[in-house]
Amino acid sequence: MFELSAYIKKQNQQINVALEKILHDSQLSEPITEAMKYSLMADGKRIRPVLCLAAAEAVGGKLQDVLPAACALEMIHTYSLIHDDLPAMDNDDLRRGKPTCHVAFDEATAILAGDALLTLAFQVLSSVQYTDENHSSNWLKVIQIISTAAGYQGMIRGQMLDMASEGRHLTVDELKSMHALKTGALIEASLLCGALLVNARKSQMEILKTYAGKIGLAFQVTDDILNVEGNPKVMGKAVGTDKLREKNTYPAILGLEASRQFAENLVNDALQTLEVFDKKADPLRALATYIIERKR
Amino acid sequence: MFELSAYIKKQNQQINVALEKILHDSQLSEPITEAMKYSLMADGKRIRPVLCLAAAEAVGGKLQDVLPAACALEMIHTYSLIHDDLPAMDNDDLRRGKPTCHVAFDEATAILAGDALLTLAFQVLSSVQYTDENHSSNWLKVIQIISTAAGYQGMIRGQMLDMASEGRHLTVDELKSMHALKTGALIEASLLCGALLVNARKSQMEILKTYAGKIGLAFQVTDDILNVEGNPKVMGKAVGTDKLREKNTYPAILGLEASRQFAENLVNDALQTLEVFDKKADPLRALATYIIERKR
Repeated sequence: MFELSAYIKKQNQQINVALEKILHDSQLSEPITEAMKYSLMADGKRIRPVLCLAAAEAVGGKLQDVLPAACALEMIHTYSLIHDDLPAMDNDDLRRGKPTCHVAFDEATAILAGDALLTLAFQVLSSVQYTDENHSSNWLKVIQIISTAAGYQGMIRGQMLDMASEGRHLTVDELKSMHALKTGALIEASLLCGALLVNARKSQMEILKTYAGKIGLAFQVTDDILNVEGNPKVMGKAVGTDKLREKNTYPAILGLEASRQFAENLVNDALQTLEVFDKKADPLRALATYIIERKR
Repeated sequence: MFELSAYIKKQNQQINVALEKILHDSQLSEPITEAMKYSLMADGKRIRPVLCLAAAEAVGGKLQDVLPAACALEMIHTYSLIHDDLPAMDNDDLRRGKPTCHVAFDEATAILAGDALLTLAFQVLSSVQYTDENHSSNWLKVIQIISTAAGYQGMIRGQMLDMASEGRHLTVDELKSMHALKTGALIEASLLCGALLVNARKSQMEILKTYAGKIGLAFQVTDDILNVEGNPKVMGKAVGTDKLREKNTYPAILGLEASRQFAENLVNDALQTLEVFDKKADPLRALATYIIERKR
């Protein structure tokens, strides 16, 4: 039996050590680095970096080979949270159990800390000590995958669509397309980069892409459910906010019970796509289930 | 006699065509791409990309080899303007002769358009069709140089220091260090990347770095002078704003005449560092003079 909570704890520890190390040499007494560290080292779930490491593992690669990519993904995710929380966007006060970055510091510092984490992600990805030339083109490909997923054709487009749809009714299909961009794109990038950096075969990449689509959507459906019935203390952020903002969510469109069933079906599909992988993919299997069973 | 204005016009044209092409395939009817295009294709001076191209030329390289880097530099510069203009930062209404991005669209769109341009810069840098493997490691190095210059150790740190120093008196040395980060770092990166991509020798890179330091500072001194005595119609943005905000500027500390002399000395130093280059560096020479003689 695979012990997921021990696995996540161990991976999170390694990710946190790596993130700390990246920020270590910086001028930590300056407000910009304090703000970056404040948000980055807060108690996040680290889903994207853990998925990145687990994808590498499933293909038979080593953690060391992909750790910089895992760190960069968490930086990009954190930057997107800082900017999404700003008064001009979702205007949220609480994140990862703490005041949001613009509340703890100020708006200008929060904007710049987000910018700085996004930029640092690419600095990390381009500063890897690669040994052979094949390696350098792999990292270039990783930068391409991540920047495309995070950019105006991916995550940023999803955030724009999300804001534009507040107070307007979406169909389930429209909701799916929006989330495929807003959260799905970076989750897919996390899995593909992990696999690519340990030289996965094309067929393995295709399977991981399908898996990513399923769990990315299940992740969002579960987020929506947790916004209805989650415990804000456990989640580290406010609940009930989607309803207040008239956001389009799965529970609002399908109802809670049907949303739960939908998420479960997606995870079953995800598990099925992994059938051709051996037990090295057990972390990915356990993570798929975790994604809908989590309480935060 | 080198014809600078014709040269700048020609280079700007090529840069604009390349930028247009990058944005061409996107969903231009969406607000995010409209906002990106609005700010990016506004009538900017294109100093950074022109310096990048001129550095490549000085070393004997071709424009085609560095054009993606030139475009990425302009995207990063434009993102920094969009974010600096936000209400939480400098709260400026006019830029490049038009309403600023958050005025023309809204604050959320402006934040995301800035994020998207920063991200797109790295997408462009990592999507170059390189032919041999040496090439791919060159582009990785360019990403490292640009992300370091633009990040929390460079441009962003400079912006933080700039905001923190409003209303507080700086010495000339403190002002120099601040500007070396805020504008100097990306100008230096522009020159180094242009040279690196056409395989400049280490000694040539060193010279260009010195040149960059001189003209970067001269650029900022001139910006400060123009903020005092420039014509807002020609400049496309408000003047007199530094005084209103009690910003530390060279004219405020040294006086106008001494500032002009200081900028002139810096340009003379810059020209002297170029002495070992042949006439292929004439654009760089002319650009040094242009930087202090410009009216916008």
